Amino acid sequence: MTSQINVLIWNEFRHEKKNPVVQQLYPDGMHQTIGKFLSAHADLNVATATLDEPEHGLTEAVLDKTDVLIWWGHTAHQEVRDDIVKRVQAHVLAGMGLIVLHSAHFAKIFQALLGTHCSLKWREAAEKERLWNIAPAHPITAGIGEYIELPQEEMYGERFDIPEPEQVIFISWFQGGEVFRSGCTWQRGHGRIFYFRPGHETYPTYHHEQVLRVILNAVRWARRRVTIPFACPNAQPLEPLDKA
Amino acid sequence: MTSQINVLIWNEFRHEKKNPVVQQLYPDGMHQTIGKFLSAHADLNVATATLDEPEHGLTEAVLDKTDVLIWWGHTAHQEVRDDIVKRVQAHVLAGMGLIVLHSAHFAKIFQALLGTHCSLKWREAAEKERLWNIAPAHPITAGIGEYIELPQEEMYGERFDIPEPEQVIFISWFQGGEVFRSGCTWQRGHGRIFYFRPGHETYPTYHHEQVLRVILNAVRWARRRVTIPFACPNAQPLEPLDKA
Amino acid sequence: MTSQINVLIWNEFRHEKKNPVVQQLYPDGMHQTIGKFLSAHADLNVATATLDEPEHGLTEAVLDKTDVLIWWGHTAHQEVRDDIVKRVQAHVLAGMGLIVLHSAHFAKIFQALLGTHCSLKWREAAEKERLWNIAPAHPITAGIGEYIELPQEEMYGERFDIPEPEQVIFISWFQGGEVFRSGCTWQRGHGRIFYFRPGHETYPTYHHEQVLRVILNAVRWARRRVTIPFACPNAQPLEPLDKA
Amino acid sequence: MTSQINVLIWNEFRHEKKNPVVQQLYPDGMHQTIGKFLSAHADLNVATATLDEPEHGLTEAVLDKTDVLIWWGHTAHQEVRDDIVKRVQAHVLAGMGLIVLHSAHFAKIFQALLGTHCSLKWREAAEKERLWNIAPAHPITAGIGEYIELPQEEMYGERFDIPEPEQVIFISWFQGGEVFRSGCTWQRGHGRIFYFRPGHETYPTYHHEQVLRVILNAVRWARRRVTIPFACPNAQPLEPLDKA
Repeated sequence: MTSQINVLIWNEFRHEKKNPVVQQLYPDGMHQTIGKFLSAHADLNVATATLDEPEHGLTEAVLDKTDVLIWWGHTAHQEVRDDIVKRVQAHVLAGMGLIVLHSAHFAKIFQALLGTHCSLKWREAAEKERLWNIAPAHPITAGIGEYIELPQEEMYGERFDIPEPEQVIFISWFQGGEVFRSGCTWQRGHGRIFYFRPGHETYPTYHHEQVLRVILNAVRWARRRVTIPFACPNAQPLEPLDKA
Repeated sequence: MTSQINVLIWNEFRHEKKNPVVQQLYPDGMHQTIGKFLSAHADLNVATATLDEPEHGLTEAVLDKTDVLIWWGHTAHQEVRDDIVKRVQAHVLAGMGLIVLHSAHFAKIFQALLGTHCSLKWREAAEKERLWNIAPAHPITAGIGEYIELPQEEMYGERFDIPEPEQVIFISWFQGGEVFRSGCTWQRGHGRIFYFRPGHETYPTYHHEQVLRVILNAVRWARRRVTIPFACPNAQPLEPLDKA
Repeated sequence: MTSQINVLIWNEFRHEKKNPVVQQLYPDGMHQTIGKFLSAHADLNVATATLDEPEHGLTEAVLDKTDVLIWWGHTAHQEVRDDIVKRVQAHVLAGMGLIVLHSAHFAKIFQALLGTHCSLKWREAAEKERLWNIAPAHPITAGIGEYIELPQEEMYGERFDIPEPEQVIFISWFQGGEVFRSGCTWQRGHGRIFYFRPGHETYPTYHHEQVLRVILNAVRWARRRVTIPFACPNAQPLEPLDKA
Repeated sequence: MTSQINVLIWNEFRHEKKNPVVQQLYPDGMHQTIGKFLSAHADLNVATATLDEPEHGLTEAVLDKTDVLIWWGHTAHQEVRDDIVKRVQAHVLAGMGLIVLHSAHFAKIFQALLGTHCSLKWREAAEKERLWNIAPAHPITAGIGEYIELPQEEMYGERFDIPEPEQVIFISWFQGGEVFRSGCTWQRGHGRIFYFRPGHETYPTYHHEQVLRVILNAVRWARRRVTIPFACPNAQPLEPLDKA
């Protein structure tokens, strides 16, 4: 617990190169904005990776030394290689934490770990979102008050097609009349997973102090505690089997 | 609820053709033994399918009219086509029930829905297993007493690499010193899933009255209640969005 | 499962006697309004009980033959006798279903079974509530569409101080900006519990068709399946204990 | 998180005064044996309390400064005052951790928080228990291997009448043929609860290194993170309620 947490922020990094609105908000990419914030904390050691790097920047060597992987994707989910999805999944099952942001609800890695479509209702109308903190004793909400209010966000509405979360951390109220389970935790294998809803690319969400604080808290909560690789051992009996 | 439940029993059906011990226990295959028992109940309409049929007997037309799919596989998991696994998964997410038996813990469809390796400890030593019923009010244990005792079974031991079940129904005690979560439920999408441990091919487990009764109960519990296909709708607001 | 379900609707029955607004909405009490609806279904056998009856109408004899108890209370929670709360709790643990309505979140029996304060935010402002159905495959939402809209209700807001539900069935959106887990299930002992939020006494909520349908569905879901009284047996070993 | 964790070890402390076998194993009481072990860790500040102290040693002042309460009781559960049980419960709901040991499954405080009888099967036959660690990534099992083996323990067998745990940490195998969920976690209000099965008074269980390590880990896991007292606020709307 005294050593640093190695965080890898993975970003599709396409919108920022094509859309001037996104470019102005995140000139170096959302991963860099989040990374700059996280880097200011001495217990974190931050690196980044993007889709267009070789192997999407997700080699075995990189994942071996990653304690928590943060994932943002949207327009190019289908370009993520299936073999690399399996690789990331194996690392989560062995103990690596995973934080899934916003439109990455449709990322292959999230679907592979949860087993469901992860579909939802959506609307881009720059409306108000209020994320109610329903787990004020959870480490992920440390320092967050009763709610987070975002003046402009994309709407995601229920039904969110996910397995019943182990704990629901945030529930969102949207101006247009919908609700959403905006912060959810699961464990898969030996890894911890946190889904966090906000972060549409055309709004300054990842500059919002409380949103960044939630991500920081989630990194600390999801950090790797063990590394236990796959095994399916043929086991000798611990007790005598003779029945006579 | 008054109409019949359409059950499809899927079996890999390989051991029965090659291994004389298995052949003697299940001359027409385990699917037929289970099917004969289930067919005696008027509320069930039973069909079967096997690996070596075209499309493994799991065409869209067949799955469309299936309310509960039972799955037994062991030696040929890798021969099950990936596109058909995806097809079955989509049907479970839309509302079809799934009952996963014994060595099908490693079936692609089970791994795809749970997101984990589903690995475990194992030993073939014909030892005693006692499955404790820890959910006596659950429909799956109706008519089952305090426990089921099987004089000879393969051992499966923890840690079973599964997501925390929604409910643990049975926990097994093994003569050789291990324990196992032998009956577990989950929901994925709109479908219900039940994993039931017993059923090694070289023992007469699927002739055991209580084991068959559990499978019957599970069919009724897991039966399709809805059919809700994939959707991810762009939704109009239900409330006014003007902020002035 | 073919025999009738014995439902007992318990109502504090005080507001209806004192408040003309409530009297006009529910001249014979909310229990009679709900009871009249439920009685129209042939599989239900409906009875009622109220606070001011001897033993609150909840004698051992009455509870012995009750399969599901529905509870509405508000202003007189403290008048419910502690010994009768313990009696009802024992019946739930033995297998009786319990449906807890609206302000009964503070009923002693609900607190006793959940172990928490069951507190929440509240506001009486006749505002709009929209209950989103997030479990469309659950028996409790059969026939309910995507949501239930109530033009005027009391607001209940998070954080609702309850143990993480086994399944969240409804999440409410309120006009004033709050959200609430409005339909939640738990099991305690051998009994099933459903909390359902709507039903402030000064609004015609229990005349609303979808609200009544949810209560009907919940009765069927929560119906007693077993009766297993308390036991803590000294057990003889099933296997030899000699270690030599 | 850098400040010390204040642990209070509560013991009924009756067996040790009356039974020479227990007296020899725990001359100063089980609380002192556990306390001595915990005190050796610099992050813990350990105190003790017993049944026969005024207010059972559980005054408001003492509980106010307690981060984790450990509870052992057996023969005198009924002597614990109801008002003090309510007081302890309020502190757990506000954020204090609670670790419940062995025969304290029948402690009033455990029953009050879980809402169930917490009954089980039992047998005193000095038989072998093997606790399988089924959550090797959980902080409570840090440093514990695949299992803990205790050569002589009292048997506790299923069905253990508890609400489905949020996570099952240990499952026990008993020589006599039973199984038991021996390590279970729940949250109630803002407090974390861990039940840990071993610790019959006539065996040297609390001298066993792995058992003590589990208790130490559980203290760190369950430590208070917040203090949030009871509230049920009347809330002003955050959004306009005019409907014209």
